[in-house]
Amino acid sequence: MTQSVSPLAPERPVDLPALDGVRIATAAAGIKYEGRTDLMVMVFDRPATVAGVFTKSLCPSAPVEFCRQNLPGGRALALVVNSGNANAFTGKKGAEAAQITADTAAAALGCDASDVFLASTGVIGEPMDASAFAGKLSGLCGDAVPDGWMGAARAIMTTDTYPKLAARTAKINGVEVRINGIAKGAGMIAPDMATMLSFVVTDADISSRALQALLSEGVEGTFNAITVDSDTSTSDTVMLFATGSAMDGDAAQIEDADDDALAEFKAALFDLLKDLAHQVVRDGEGARKMVEITVRGAASDKAAKIIALSVANSPLVKTAVAGEDANWGRVVMAVGKAGQEANRDQLNIWFGDIRVAASGERDPDYSEEAAAAVMKQSTINITVDVGVGNGEATVWTCDLTKDYVAINGDYRS
Amino acid sequence: MTQSVSPLAPERPVDLPALDGVRIATAAAGIKYEGRTDLMVMVFDRPATVAGVFTKSLCPSAPVEFCRQNLPGGRALALVVNSGNANAFTGKKGAEAAQITADTAAAALGCDASDVFLASTGVIGEPMDASAFAGKLSGLCGDAVPDGWMGAARAIMTTDTYPKLAARTAKINGVEVRINGIAKGAGMIAPDMATMLSFVVTDADISSRALQALLSEGVEGTFNAITVDSDTSTSDTVMLFATGSAMDGDAAQIEDADDDALAEFKAALFDLLKDLAHQVVRDGEGARKMVEITVRGAASDKAAKIIALSVANSPLVKTAVAGEDANWGRVVMAVGKAGQEANRDQLNIWFGDIRVAASGERDPDYSEEAAAAVMKQSTINITVDVGVGNGEATVWTCDLTKDYVAINGDYRS
Repeated sequence: MTQSVSPLAPERPVDLPALDGVRIATAAAGIKYEGRTDLMVMVFDRPATVAGVFTKSLCPSAPVEFCRQNLPGGRALALVVNSGNANAFTGKKGAEAAQITADTAAAALGCDASDVFLASTGVIGEPMDASAFAGKLSGLCGDAVPDGWMGAARAIMTTDTYPKLAARTAKINGVEVRINGIAKGAGMIAPDMATMLSFVVTDADISSRALQALLSEGVEGTFNAITVDSDTSTSDTVMLFATGSAMDGDAAQIEDADDDALAEFKAALFDLLKDLAHQVVRDGEGARKMVEITVRGAASDKAAKIIALSVANSPLVKTAVAGEDANWGRVVMAVGKAGQEANRDQLNIWFGDIRVAASGERDPDYSEEAAAAVMKQSTINITVDVGVGNGEATVWTCDLTKDYVAINGDYRS
Repeated sequence: MTQSVSPLAPERPVDLPALDGVRIATAAAGIKYEGRTDLMVMVFDRPATVAGVFTKSLCPSAPVEFCRQNLPGGRALALVVNSGNANAFTGKKGAEAAQITADTAAAALGCDASDVFLASTGVIGEPMDASAFAGKLSGLCGDAVPDGWMGAARAIMTTDTYPKLAARTAKINGVEVRINGIAKGAGMIAPDMATMLSFVVTDADISSRALQALLSEGVEGTFNAITVDSDTSTSDTVMLFATGSAMDGDAAQIEDADDDALAEFKAALFDLLKDLAHQVVRDGEGARKMVEITVRGAASDKAAKIIALSVANSPLVKTAVAGEDANWGRVVMAVGKAGQEANRDQLNIWFGDIRVAASGERDPDYSEEAAAAVMKQSTINITVDVGVGNGEATVWTCDLTKDYVAINGDYRS
């Protein structure tokens, strides 16, 4: 199904510069789509360190299980991603398809299958015939080139309407390092693990253990703080690789995530993760508006996040945003159903800068016109103070439109 | 906003016969709507016993708080319900409006305000001027007549497209008793407490304590097992009154819900609650299909219900149903995200009688045509066996259509 590009898309996608130590290739393997690429390989010149966070679904896909198995090894020589088929709920044949894919890449690169990582995205429950694209895969491993980021971002898209890329730089002990990242999302986006794929590579030299700590912390306020439809996929995967190529020479690998030398890198990484997460929300299926929801005054940061997600996932809040209706009563409803401590009679709610509710009732200065003007914007900030403590959290979502229903009522057929 | 009647509505609403001991009156008080009734009073000739279950929202409406306060008294002489304004998140003025309403009814009936129960449904956060309809209310208490059930069901509607009524009879110690019930629902329907109003009256003679036990148990598999959009209102209220009028004479009041004499009554009551709950789902905003989801093989009945509700609340499952797409992969996704024990490789899924997934993969005999035929029906049964135990639960929901978005994107304005 074809859709026009999301009105919330960046004006134009930015391509990324090459990053030392990684090469990329893509191909049209015809897994499901016609006339577009659907297979992507990243090849690391030398073993990269690796970290990953995966879906909390109890019915994970075969590639997720495969990655979990390889992750303790802490080294990666290749990443293979396909779109069009999620290889999820495909039983023993699914595990075999994952193994065939990894074996093929390993043979082409002369490495072990345990050094290969995989991700698949697309339809669930359809058997995936990996042998059908194994031939292409062998060639790809040899064809990979440094300048392939835009192609990679395009090859992993499913119902995405635009490719998602972001880059940052940072200094570690005086050496400039790069971070390049791509993501795909669109439907089934919800925290724990924002139902999407994202792959980030840096040329810094950081141990797998430190990478894992950085990534696990980094997703909390970014990929785990976005939601499109509260649905969690079987395939959510965020991986972070470090090639170490920028640090060649004297510098020792950084072993510890708390190393002071990583402060700037960590900030740049988290900023990149947030950038990609926002791009995913902005491409939410049928989205016309982005919504940032901040809850403060909660009993804890965790409580604040639960309340914020309750607001973000409420179909009634999301349809009100779609209708540009400043219906703060539905925000009250969503706060009330979250099950976290809140003081109804101290509740304050703002739409943008307009306080619409104060101390448990409609703001005495409430102006329908002022609130309506906020709702016409393409990004809407909703702030709620629940009046019981100092906990705070921000999450992001999009509106729920008729197009969401249209896209998802006709996705598989 | 006007909508045509839900295609899932009963062919024609059945009016209910009078029930001894209760009289009903309605009026058009102009609270919000024009050209229709919006105020309903039930008057009990003698003090009725009473039970209630209410929203678990932490931001409950003023009438919910008022009822909770009166419930321990265990006696009711009147019930006053208005539509158009929920009197929720209205601060101290909201509590005052509830008190004025109750005081007015109490004065007209010569009883205490603590014998009056209230419910309000409609917009949240708008101040409700009870004094504006207090005049009508005084008159109504005198005008009440036994034959007012259809009028009552109509007066409490908001976005409902049809009135919801049900009646049952049962024998208690050889005496036939009646149970009459009405409900309203449509949006914000989700368990804990299926975001709706329902009022049930029987002429049996049963203590408040026993009534409460019956009602609390009865809602579990009925009103607490339906969901339209996962949103929980601030006003959910189900009340059960017993006038005792059928039992005049020698029979003693039944004190205990476990009394064998109540077996038939209990079955009839639960059946009536299920009937009303289903009528609420069938009038889900924008609903075109009803979906019954049964989960079995779970670790416990409670786990089964959590999984079933995860499927029922998944926007991706609900849009697939709307699109008549037999997309069982989304059912797998919803099972996986429920967080309850499930054996992915033992999962079986049926759409109607068609097994679409077996032992963790697509059924070897899967037929797209057979599954598609099931999806064309107006009521769709989805059964999932998660393969770990004997827990079982059934819940009901409806599809998610463009009309849901249209109705809720334009409700308040």
